[in-house]
Amino acid sequence: MINKLMGKISDMKAPVVVGLDPKLGFVPDFIKQASFDKYGETLKGASEAIWQFNKGIIDEIKDVVPAVKPQVAMYEQFGLPGMEAYQRTVDYCHENGLIVIGDVKRGDIGSTSEAYAVGHLGKVQIGSSSVSAFNEDFATVNPYLGTDGIKPFVDVCKAEKKGIFILVKTSNPSSGEFQDRLIDGKPLYEHVADKVNEWGADAMGDNYSYVGAVVGATYPEMGAQLRKLMPKALILVPGYGAQGGTADDLAGFFNSDGLGAIVNSSRGIIAAYKKEEYAAKFSEKDYAKASYQAAVDMVEDIRRVL
Amino acid sequence: MINKLMGKISDMKAPVVVGLDPKLGFVPDFIKQASFDKYGETLKGASEAIWQFNKGIIDEIKDVVPAVKPQVAMYEQFGLPGMEAYQRTVDYCHENGLIVIGDVKRGDIGSTSEAYAVGHLGKVQIGSSSVSAFNEDFATVNPYLGTDGIKPFVDVCKAEKKGIFILVKTSNPSSGEFQDRLIDGKPLYEHVADKVNEWGADAMGDNYSYVGAVVGATYPEMGAQLRKLMPKALILVPGYGAQGGTADDLAGFFNSDGLGAIVNSSRGIIAAYKKEEYAAKFSEKDYAKASYQAAVDMVEDIRRVL
Repeated sequence: MINKLMGKISDMKAPVVVGLDPKLGFVPDFIKQASFDKYGETLKGASEAIWQFNKGIIDEIKDVVPAVKPQVAMYEQFGLPGMEAYQRTVDYCHENGLIVIGDVKRGDIGSTSEAYAVGHLGKVQIGSSSVSAFNEDFATVNPYLGTDGIKPFVDVCKAEKKGIFILVKTSNPSSGEFQDRLIDGKPLYEHVADKVNEWGADAMGDNYSYVGAVVGATYPEMGAQLRKLMPKALILVPGYGAQGGTADDLAGFFNSDGLGAIVNSSRGIIAAYKKEEYAAKFSEKDYAKASYQAAVDMVEDIRRVL
Repeated sequence: MINKLMGKISDMKAPVVVGLDPKLGFVPDFIKQASFDKYGETLKGASEAIWQFNKGIIDEIKDVVPAVKPQVAMYEQFGLPGMEAYQRTVDYCHENGLIVIGDVKRGDIGSTSEAYAVGHLGKVQIGSSSVSAFNEDFATVNPYLGTDGIKPFVDVCKAEKKGIFILVKTSNPSSGEFQDRLIDGKPLYEHVADKVNEWGADAMGDNYSYVGAVVGATYPEMGAQLRKLMPKALILVPGYGAQGGTADDLAGFFNSDGLGAIVNSSRGIIAAYKKEEYAAKFSEKDYAKASYQAAVDMVEDIRRVL
């Protein structure tokens, strides 16, 4: 899957992933109203609304970006119907040729991480049958528990040819509280980066490992440093756009071949129709066309710095 | 909810929580067979089996322990039907007066943590309605992203009078890889403990904070140290029993009043019927009665060291 992702990024010249993080506030009123009329202001009503919203966007963006990254929290907040909308989104993205990065940030002790790994990336054994559950292509994973919390994910990735992105340096303002603290003269995030190399060493695709890293666009200098420290890790870069990262911040996240990073934007794409620059051209009804235009514009913006 | 939990622990003299982590391998054949006959070797068949398994155990243990801790990964591995079994388990525990600690280990950037917090502990806003989703009483939370990933959970806890347990020092063998590393002369887990105090300071119940901590029974000396460092935090202690922690390891986790910690056992209780000491007395059909006996024995074992 890492080879497939790198291939799509190269072919499309688009190291970009669209974050499908459908807050209800982003969903146009006409979609919400239709769903509430049918199911009421219920978990089911909200979940149908975010699914319809996603579907519109997926139909428009599928040919301009290689991948999407649904943030599972935005679905989980709507309970079981929300998780159903998550599953439908994952499946529909696959039907439309998009690679799916499940932004689930799971991580636990070994036996528990194994359950997360099979549930999201692998197959669970039921009697004599092996069955896929959520079936994303990649998942994000939290490193706080160390190697035995990561190893089961790597094992499943090797068996299924899928991948993970380990949280190394996150995009949020307080990420430095623990991640930046110095241990033996270097920040914790660099120690995590060393482990990313170790965990990914025997899980290699052609040029990049099945084990990638998350590094926020909001910390460009650390990104450039981490790019050098993890030569084989694809870096998933959140924080572009709404969180404040700009294309100029991104150059250091890439290798000299223009590869090595995939930049996420969520709000900036899926809620583009609410931004002044797109609102003038696209009505609420055309929210998905605004998302298409924002995705095209983002790809161009990033190509500029490669 | 922290006051309710502390009250139940005192009244029952049982600082014990049963981990409802139903691996399919723990479920007796007669339950699996009945479920597979009905639904096949499918996600639905597995999920029905773990739900029936849980139900039997909940019916037996509800009067001897104050709380349960379902590990969501064990349900999530079975996809949507698994999450339905999780929800049924949470709801059935509530109907039977048990406090529910959702072992979800979520944690993300601020806006995303907010979605997790409302989905698991609070109410999500849908149009003009506020709706509960998973509705656990407590949740476990990963601290790697720092304050802005934790704050939304604390805010929801204050609004809903619920609680969280922050991962401080986990029970697994490799937990030391990052958690034990020295920063300014003290281990990372102590820096996290300082933050637990800070995050919990203005979210106090009568004697303990809404913000507790996870510290593994497998690290008794660190547990004793952390007990002193976080005087207002209830400590959730995994690792007793199957992971190797013994009652003698636990004394230091408690305050002098015999409170301050709640000890989890999963396999040791829910799969007791497979252990030699119970197998002689309880057949597979009586698996839940074996769980009852194992819970009673565990409570007595822990009372011994208080």
